[in-house]
Amino acid sequence: MNIDDLTSHMGAWLGGQGPHANVVISSRIRLARNVAQRPFLSTASPAQRRDIYESLSNEVARLYPINTSLFIDVDKASPLDRQLLVERHLISHHHAVSEGSRGVSVSHDESAALMINEEDHLRVQVLSEGLQLEALWTKINAIDDKLSDRIPFAFDKQLGYLTVCPTNVGTGIRVSVMMHLPALKWTKEIERVERATRDMRLAVRGQYGEGTDVVGDLYQISNQTTLGTSEEEIVEVFNNKIIPRIVEYEYAARETLIKHSLEQFEDKVWRAFGLLSNARCISTQETQTLLSPLRMAIHMDRFSVIDIQTLNDIFLQTQSAHLQKRAGTTMNGSERAIARASYIRQKLS
Amino acid sequence: MNIDDLTSHMGAWLGGQGPHANVVISSRIRLARNVAQRPFLSTASPAQRRDIYESLSNEVARLYPINTSLFIDVDKASPLDRQLLVERHLISHHHAVSEGSRGVSVSHDESAALMINEEDHLRVQVLSEGLQLEALWTKINAIDDKLSDRIPFAFDKQLGYLTVCPTNVGTGIRVSVMMHLPALKWTKEIERVERATRDMRLAVRGQYGEGTDVVGDLYQISNQTTLGTSEEEIVEVFNNKIIPRIVEYEYAARETLIKHSLEQFEDKVWRAFGLLSNARCISTQETQTLLSPLRMAIHMDRFSVIDIQTLNDIFLQTQSAHLQKRAGTTMNGSERAIARASYIRQKLS
Repeated sequence: MNIDDLTSHMGAWLGGQGPHANVVISSRIRLARNVAQRPFLSTASPAQRRDIYESLSNEVARLYPINTSLFIDVDKASPLDRQLLVERHLISHHHAVSEGSRGVSVSHDESAALMINEEDHLRVQVLSEGLQLEALWTKINAIDDKLSDRIPFAFDKQLGYLTVCPTNVGTGIRVSVMMHLPALKWTKEIERVERATRDMRLAVRGQYGEGTDVVGDLYQISNQTTLGTSEEEIVEVFNNKIIPRIVEYEYAARETLIKHSLEQFEDKVWRAFGLLSNARCISTQETQTLLSPLRMAIHMDRFSVIDIQTLNDIFLQTQSAHLQKRAGTTMNGSERAIARASYIRQKLS
Repeated sequence: MNIDDLTSHMGAWLGGQGPHANVVISSRIRLARNVAQRPFLSTASPAQRRDIYESLSNEVARLYPINTSLFIDVDKASPLDRQLLVERHLISHHHAVSEGSRGVSVSHDESAALMINEEDHLRVQVLSEGLQLEALWTKINAIDDKLSDRIPFAFDKQLGYLTVCPTNVGTGIRVSVMMHLPALKWTKEIERVERATRDMRLAVRGQYGEGTDVVGDLYQISNQTTLGTSEEEIVEVFNNKIIPRIVEYEYAARETLIKHSLEQFEDKVWRAFGLLSNARCISTQETQTLLSPLRMAIHMDRFSVIDIQTLNDIFLQTQSAHLQKRAGTTMNGSERAIARASYIRQKLS
């Protein structure tokens, strides 16, 4: 697989199916690992960093045979390719813009990605559509076991896995769920949810993770600390308690909207459709903002002009790097806005 | 004709044709007259006001035979009927909401209306589509002559016609032109036009006249003083100099938009269409704001989904009183917003 082939696929996490798919877009688990006897990247010299990169990419290549996966030298990749990987949630924004030897290995269906030399030597992530953290945990645990067989990870009996940032010390696990919460936003109950999640020491962020704003009512909810509790416990609480509870709140808020604000609900949905199917220039942010009520209405069986696959296709493909990769050329902001609007109209017509 | 029949017609001034129809929606001339030997309304007792009303409605009835026109006792009319007359530009807002004996006589095609006991005893107005002030002057002059044959108007050799408000003393004429100036607004050149017209002692107002805001880029431009210059001069300057000059400016601004902002132009037009053809609730103000770019694009042969007659029909019929008269019932704000959106969708589909 070549990086240019990515735009012709959907990405495992955006299939629109899976448990609680009406509210939970995707689930993700990542592990932070560092190689024992090697300096943390925060103190490593460029040469040490290159050494780590080279030995880890060899190990990763053994784990993911080249013929079924994609390995990208992020340092040598073009800005457009890096942006594409961010848009597909395969690397972090930090990994795209930082410097020095670094890379990412992606499984053929994009359900797993291993970042080398992000903040830690190794960041392993697995992704899925819907809420299926337990399956993801089984999967990432197996990957971790395979890696551990060959790589001596920095581990302290008392503390657990050692990481650059203290919040990752311990299990090194981060569990994230991307939720679509338009009704909680509309009814302003989202503020209560945000307070409650903060009280539980969870982070609520935008869809591209740390430092990104919430756009299109997509909230990424994740654990903040990884010390003093087992991976299985974190996964279990997320998968079976916290997220299903928020899903219930969102459903209740949707019911409330239908019961008390049906006209405004339909107005919002159809206006969004009217703008998307007629605009001649449109930004990514406006696109995602307008897709939100349509996504909700489709999931509520209250809008049937397009299906969720078409919506997810628009969602993914109208991002800036996707547009430019498909066009085979770089474009400035207004050219992208025109190309984006044109793509959307074609999909909606 | 009955007042309920009005909603099934278009109104002479909204035909969408006539000289400079691409920019000039309609022309209007009105004369202010008072009956000699009768007190001005500002000082008249209710009984005197009633006397004036009764004698003038008799005269007006002779001028407009009942079988081809509509006479409305505005004091006895329902609030909805009064509002309907305002929306059709047949009476002023002041006439709708003031108190005491008053009425209006409307010609069968709504091209002429005589208000009794508005600010002055008699306000005669003639309306047309496009820019045709000279024809309107001929018409109103003939009406004025007929009225003068039977009614002794308050007239001073030195000052001319005497009126309640000093700005009307003299000829008592007000010439107004309703112009659609979206491109001057967009390019912000409208501010220069407003300054220039103010320097010429002209008034620039919203479409419903005095005290109304500009909505949908519709500007009503009219003379402010009527003393010291003849009616013919005022009409000639308006019809052949001032308005054609503004029309030229608007055309130039439209050219500029096409040349330098074609994408934004088309985006604005199609977004307006998308919202109008999909909204489920919509206000009058938003409707008129969205109709503006469509009107411009139709006149520029850059939008052909609907024609100007359909647009004018939506423009007229979505006003609040029109909606309620057609529905045969009064409606609150949200009911009107839903009925309005539904009417628009039906017309655009």
